[in-house]
Amino acid sequence: MKKATRRSTTIRDVASAAGVSVGTVSRSLNAPDSVRPATLVKVRTAIEALGFQPDSRAQIMRRRHTMTIGFVVDDIGNPLHATTFKAVSAVMRERGFSPYLVNTEGGAENEAAAIDMLQHGRADGVIMTINSEKDAGTLKRLEQLRIPSVLLDRDIPLDIDAVLTDHAVGMQQATSYLIGLGHRRIALITGGSDIRPGRERIRGFVEAFRQRDLEVPTDLIRAQSLSADYGFREASNLLQREKPTAIIAAGNRILVGVLRVIQQNKLSIPGDLSLIACDQTDLALLYPGPITLIDRNIEEIGRTAAHLLLERLGSADDKPAQRISLPTRLILGGSCAPVPA
Amino acid sequence: MKKATRRSTTIRDVASAAGVSVGTVSRSLNAPDSVRPATLVKVRTAIEALGFQPDSRAQIMRRRHTMTIGFVVDDIGNPLHATTFKAVSAVMRERGFSPYLVNTEGGAENEAAAIDMLQHGRADGVIMTINSEKDAGTLKRLEQLRIPSVLLDRDIPLDIDAVLTDHAVGMQQATSYLIGLGHRRIALITGGSDIRPGRERIRGFVEAFRQRDLEVPTDLIRAQSLSADYGFREASNLLQREKPTAIIAAGNRILVGVLRVIQQNKLSIPGDLSLIACDQTDLALLYPGPITLIDRNIEEIGRTAAHLLLERLGSADDKPAQRISLPTRLILGGSCAPVPA
Repeated sequence: MKKATRRSTTIRDVASAAGVSVGTVSRSLNAPDSVRPATLVKVRTAIEALGFQPDSRAQIMRRRHTMTIGFVVDDIGNPLHATTFKAVSAVMRERGFSPYLVNTEGGAENEAAAIDMLQHGRADGVIMTINSEKDAGTLKRLEQLRIPSVLLDRDIPLDIDAVLTDHAVGMQQATSYLIGLGHRRIALITGGSDIRPGRERIRGFVEAFRQRDLEVPTDLIRAQSLSADYGFREASNLLQREKPTAIIAAGNRILVGVLRVIQQNKLSIPGDLSLIACDQTDLALLYPGPITLIDRNIEEIGRTAAHLLLERLGSADDKPAQRISLPTRLILGGSCAPVPA
Repeated sequence: MKKATRRSTTIRDVASAAGVSVGTVSRSLNAPDSVRPATLVKVRTAIEALGFQPDSRAQIMRRRHTMTIGFVVDDIGNPLHATTFKAVSAVMRERGFSPYLVNTEGGAENEAAAIDMLQHGRADGVIMTINSEKDAGTLKRLEQLRIPSVLLDRDIPLDIDAVLTDHAVGMQQATSYLIGLGHRRIALITGGSDIRPGRERIRGFVEAFRQRDLEVPTDLIRAQSLSADYGFREASNLLQREKPTAIIAAGNRILVGVLRVIQQNKLSIPGDLSLIACDQTDLALLYPGPITLIDRNIEEIGRTAAHLLLERLGSADDKPAQRISLPTRLILGGSCAPVPA
């Protein structure tokens, strides 16, 4: 009998065998105290049965020289990135790696420079987000990357591990909730279609209207940037001209811009306008209401990315890329009200 | 009295103690990335045990090659630190240096480890804040530091450059403003007296009452930690037992904790309680009111620290340490009201 060349076991296989999420497997490896004993047993049984080797320390030792991993983001002042970085750091430090943060301030050129610096002796691997999935220069650099990498929330046609978020489902739920409250003039402000979060959120938004055979308010979709300034500009324009009854600020920096407009115009939430945001930032949680939001487990995103990278660093195999998508959930605050009849 | 001629420890002693070659010790000092971690640990242990001082400041100057500067903070998720880091990075990158962020999560041990790592070949200089000015271990490490450094907002009895804030003046202004509105039961929540911001803020607070010959409400001063959890706990206790008419949340993470209490107790600001915060965070600026705050120019703090470090890096002189103190200003929002008669 011909022996099949056996693909090595991945964290995904373990999750599937144990009937748990990839994040749970990750936590079972890194923070077993946070996992229920019964679950831990299931995971460990699966690890044993499949002969899964999360990262063979010996292999890392042989190969590695810097014991450093790069973390590349456009703005560490963004609480999303800071939380992810801290979660990545915690896992990495436990394994003896020092995290090296590169704050690019956006821009394909800075990203390219960061990738170049890291792969030329500064880091053994890199976890990053990029500002555009369409920039040819960045894509070329990633294609020729000489160290393992994991992409955060980006989807490019290359064989690179990635941790994604189910933005479409999250947005569809949020939009449906507003539709259920009677809203039709719902505005969506989010990132451009050159990044997966932008595309997926638009998809979920559109889907929510189509499910109910409602016309999609395409004139109220503003999808170009995740910045606070963009949120401010588009919220100003929308409120002046289009009179939406609700705004979905899909991006935590966008929320900052939208709240500036709300402050300037002395609007009351939800009396004058219903509002939904993304991610559990201090601002979203503590703004009076609080703000209803599409939440995701950012620590889990960071831990999962760290795990995928460790798996790569610990193995010489050219396993196919893994793309792990993590769920969102809608947390109801007090920032949405029914449309007045 | 006879002076013992103590032979100083040589690199050869270290090699012999560590059981490695002199060349390996040299590489451990100059190119630690090229040395196996286990060996590095042996060498560093021997260096520590023998009190070996490999090189003088002047030698480092001649030899500097990492073109990296370290930035050490306890929590990069604190917007104050993120903004400082970005300002430092901008200046440093212009001069060809890469910033290396170390997020210690607090704790003297982590800080010591960070300092050790950076000064052993990872960085040419370091900008840092430390969690306590009283930790003997940290002070000892700073005393023996072999690379130039700049302290942020800390005051220790060593010859080290520092960038400080005029916290006492800022706090005195804020407290006087509240006293002018008729408040006497003013609570202050801030960091401990083991760090300069804690001490100086208390000093300014007390001074404001004394200037008007008023009794200082010492029972309302809570000064132990800058964390959100501490802010939450102390604000809860104060509101339950002491009935202050105003709270000064002196620390941007403390504000997060205080606002959680305000949210839970459904208090209206400034109707039920007057509130003053520190630093222009998104939360302080966008919280309805907005919140009256003791502001400082955080970018300028970062730029000043970067310039002090560059000055040190560019000169072999042993100039005395510079301590630069930057001002604050009170920005009136809508979170303070007169005490009802």
